[in-house]
Amino acid sequence: MSEKVNLAEKLATFTEHWAPRTVTEFNGHDVMVVKVQGPFVWHKHDDTDDFFLVLAGEIDIEMPDRTITLGPGEVFVVPQGVEHRPVAKEEAQIMIIEPTGTPNTGDAATAAKRRRV
Amino acid sequence: MSEKVNLAEKLATFTEHWAPRTVTEFNGHDVMVVKVQGPFVWHKHDDTDDFFLVLAGEIDIEMPDRTITLGPGEVFVVPQGVEHRPVAKEEAQIMIIEPTGTPNTGDAATAAKRRRV
Repeated sequence: MSEKVNLAEKLATFTEHWAPRTVTEFNGHDVMVVKVQGPFVWHKHDDTDDFFLVLAGEIDIEMPDRTITLGPGEVFVVPQGVEHRPVAKEEAQIMIIEPTGTPNTGDAATAAKRRRV
Repeated sequence: MSEKVNLAEKLATFTEHWAPRTVTEFNGHDVMVVKVQGPFVWHKHDDTDDFFLVLAGEIDIEMPDRTITLGPGEVFVVPQGVEHRPVAKEEAQIMIIEPTGTPNTGDAATAAKRRRV
């Protein structure tokens, strides 16, 4: 049965960076919370857009031709197939949505294992 | 080209209740912000889950067998096919995600026209 999710409570259950936790599912997608700090890897998703909502802190979404800086309450969708690298100068907390099973690095060999909280 | 979206800025552009504004698209879905107050109509979506995130205020999601109360930073997914009625005692601001073209009342004849901001 679907339950409500308090995003801050879910974020308080772990400390690792770049290790998404699935908090609920929606139309074949995982809704995830992630703590991020420092640079992630350059990657792309050939089969899906990539939804970012910043909950706390600030992140840069670097792309080949531009960088988007997001603060709390700001959303950005990286279009399918576009190379990008999220970077957070200080720790930030974000919500992301991707189809269930999407490797966070764009590559199953290097992806974080999906966990649920 | 995909642009970043500040949800509060988008919400500040209108005052009507229960009139969703599309702010960006994601994998065939509209990401929308909505101001809500009072009761909506009982409805269901036979073909899609219904994603709610409260940004400000509080809403009740009434369902036949239970009511879920959501405050800021809380998410709830109404499963496909489940009757529900959102109700807000005071004005609240929410983000919702539904497949592009989904009627907000579950019925194209009574649905709010989708608008973009």
